[in-house]
Amino acid sequence: MVMEENEVSKRNQLIESLLSAETNEDLSAILEDTHSADIADILEVLSKDEKLRIVHALKQETITEILPEMDPDFFYLLLDDFGPEYMASILDELPSDEAADIMSELNQKDLDNLLSLMHRHESALVRRVLQYPEDTAGRLMSTDYVAMNENTTPEQAIEYIRSKRQEEPFYYVYVVDNNNKFIGSVPIQKILFASKTSTLGVLIDEEETVSVSTGVDQEEVARLFEKYDIPAVPVVDGDGRLAGRITVDDIIDVIYEENSEDIYRMAGTDYEEVYSDSAFKVARIRLPWLLTCIIGSLLSGAVIHYFEITLSKAIALVSFIPVIMATGGNTGLQSCTIMVRRMALGNVSSHNVFSSIFKEIRTGLILGLVCGSFLCLIAFLWRGDASVGVILGMSMFCAVSASSILGILIPMVFKKINIDPAVASGPFITTLNDVIGLTIYLFLATILLSHVL
Amino acid sequence: MVMEENEVSKRNQLIESLLSAETNEDLSAILEDTHSADIADILEVLSKDEKLRIVHALKQETITEILPEMDPDFFYLLLDDFGPEYMASILDELPSDEAADIMSELNQKDLDNLLSLMHRHESALVRRVLQYPEDTAGRLMSTDYVAMNENTTPEQAIEYIRSKRQEEPFYYVYVVDNNNKFIGSVPIQKILFASKTSTLGVLIDEEETVSVSTGVDQEEVARLFEKYDIPAVPVVDGDGRLAGRITVDDIIDVIYEENSEDIYRMAGTDYEEVYSDSAFKVARIRLPWLLTCIIGSLLSGAVIHYFEITLSKAIALVSFIPVIMATGGNTGLQSCTIMVRRMALGNVSSHNVFSSIFKEIRTGLILGLVCGSFLCLIAFLWRGDASVGVILGMSMFCAVSASSILGILIPMVFKKINIDPAVASGPFITTLNDVIGLTIYLFLATILLSHVL
Repeated sequence: MVMEENEVSKRNQLIESLLSAETNEDLSAILEDTHSADIADILEVLSKDEKLRIVHALKQETITEILPEMDPDFFYLLLDDFGPEYMASILDELPSDEAADIMSELNQKDLDNLLSLMHRHESALVRRVLQYPEDTAGRLMSTDYVAMNENTTPEQAIEYIRSKRQEEPFYYVYVVDNNNKFIGSVPIQKILFASKTSTLGVLIDEEETVSVSTGVDQEEVARLFEKYDIPAVPVVDGDGRLAGRITVDDIIDVIYEENSEDIYRMAGTDYEEVYSDSAFKVARIRLPWLLTCIIGSLLSGAVIHYFEITLSKAIALVSFIPVIMATGGNTGLQSCTIMVRRMALGNVSSHNVFSSIFKEIRTGLILGLVCGSFLCLIAFLWRGDASVGVILGMSMFCAVSASSILGILIPMVFKKINIDPAVASGPFITTLNDVIGLTIYLFLATILLSHVL
Repeated sequence: MVMEENEVSKRNQLIESLLSAETNEDLSAILEDTHSADIADILEVLSKDEKLRIVHALKQETITEILPEMDPDFFYLLLDDFGPEYMASILDELPSDEAADIMSELNQKDLDNLLSLMHRHESALVRRVLQYPEDTAGRLMSTDYVAMNENTTPEQAIEYIRSKRQEEPFYYVYVVDNNNKFIGSVPIQKILFASKTSTLGVLIDEEETVSVSTGVDQEEVARLFEKYDIPAVPVVDGDGRLAGRITVDDIIDVIYEENSEDIYRMAGTDYEEVYSDSAFKVARIRLPWLLTCIIGSLLSGAVIHYFEITLSKAIALVSFIPVIMATGGNTGLQSCTIMVRRMALGNVSSHNVFSSIFKEIRTGLILGLVCGSFLCLIAFLWRGDASVGVILGMSMFCAVSASSILGILIPMVFKKINIDPAVASGPFITTLNDVIGLTIYLFLATILLSHVL
């Protein structure tokens, strides 16, 4: 099928025709002509009952194909409806890494039950994959690769691959020694076009020979694909022996997932919430951050409380609390976001940390100067009082420059103490900057006004 | 090379040994052993002088390889140092899509000059690519594909490919009719293992036959790779004729870029800022947002000004302004972020819009109830005054539920009027929620306190 620019409306049409199909035969006929990836895509936006109606019109083979694309709630929906024996038979049909990926999201009881119902060989494979920690290369890899000895000739290699009837695309033949140690990668087209007397050892492509050990974090693996522009990477164990391979289609899912995770963390929520249909569950995910933020901003309240005497003397000062708080918070968010993102993309090394900090300090000072002057002018025009203008301008300058510098330092500190820097952006940094901005403002106001009042 | 878990420290070591190399021979020797992608990676974190010293120790071939990985500033650095003739000769060596990608970032004068210095054939190709709008499939595609007629036998296909000496991996042979209309895709391994009497038309893999038209947005193309798990996709023109192909390695770059863009927009800044070494430039990118936000929060100030009589009567109310503002802002940010991200990932269709809104309303009410009760309790304990507690609890309930519903509606409205929804999150939504939260709070306080005071 051709993907056109009006893809969304095409999907909506398909959804409509699926939902308005009157008989199950009509439904099956439409589904027969639809790519399994499109079915998965559509199922995602339907209600539970609609999902079930469509799934019942699918062949088992198609259910097996769409399952890895779906969220954990969908698996539980099918488990409730079809029962564990049927689901175990579907899991048996999946590649071990995809089965493990789905099963890792289940609770221990359902996991044990399904493992016991699966074929012995398949469940052993899944158990092995599940031994690797989540989000590592070991957990991501599939054992579905093609490896041969370096002395193999291209003809022998082709003979072997033919006999193996490999269904998945494999891109490379991995060359190993007699102990299964990984030596190098040969792109499949090189084998195809090699002279008959050559050997795999000779055909190894050094530029594309990149491997990754089982413990490497999946985010690092993704960056490796980005950097070396390769369609697959072999995974080796601690002794350099070939253990599996990761293909680029899994990596694309990882990149989307990790990016979403960062974005959600910035806003103080979680990836899980997208999968959840329950408002209670969503509220439970968001509340810890909101309550933290309430407590943090009560701290701002305490600062205000401390300066109540100043404020009651000059109530006009209260009107400018929001602008000091909001601008400080936003400046901090900007520099923090840039820093967190650069760290996530691997663009920060110990070599350029100081130049980053120094650049941010300069930027912060410029921003503070412009915002401070702007506010000073506005305050003077609005209130016709030069002293309020000066207090505000100075406070804004201090708050903005302090915030933008904090915004770059906090993610670094978080990383040092092993907290995900993405957590630093959003609510955390904003709340902290609120307190700092307010304190500066009210402190300056108290000092300067004591000379005026 | 094997990628280990301590990749970052390995990179830092490499940077150190590069920078401490005393002679240019030492430098060249280290660079000789380093993958060009690693060199590009390292160059990114170095200063201008360090960059130039290393580039001068590289072979022209290696410079050609690393150029597409670098940012526009790097190209200008080389242009200043090596002059336009040399850079034109490097651009000649690049595939036309990569050359066009680099050249699209140049100013018109440099672009014209370089195009006139390039080989006639190469510059014509680049001009053709540059005709497609930025961020579309047409601009992304390369003309470096393998296409054959449906009657070709596998043997003829292999013969043809051998003669073409295709260097880039190609994954598929695209099948076209006599008018170059795209018919289907044949994975390379299917050709390899087919019987000699078969034809490409028979070998077409329906599941992997996906194509995209030149005008499709690159974000849509990326989602297509995510959905169909394919390593490359053919691009067709308005008449269904094959025009080029896009490979997954370019798509990975697109995904990283688009995700970064969304994240930066959420924080009110821009992708460009990461590339910029100048604090003035960075400040100029961030300032429009900050000034918008200052004006927005002055609106909050005006609301406060309007309620100054209430506040001067009960100065204790001022202490709670930050908590109402911050919590409203954060709730809005959470629901807005979830919505924007779901839209970016294509998980929102007209079919499920109302269920999304309804779910968010329920979540908002729960959040409002919990946060409101919590704050009511805190206020009562802190100030020992039941009426302040009640005012706060009620205001918080209204502010939080209103914000979370606004957070989901605003991105939808933005999308309807063709503004990138990502712009809605961050500063914009926070400022709006500030004003709403404050108004509710001070309004309630004025009404309720008029009975007390």
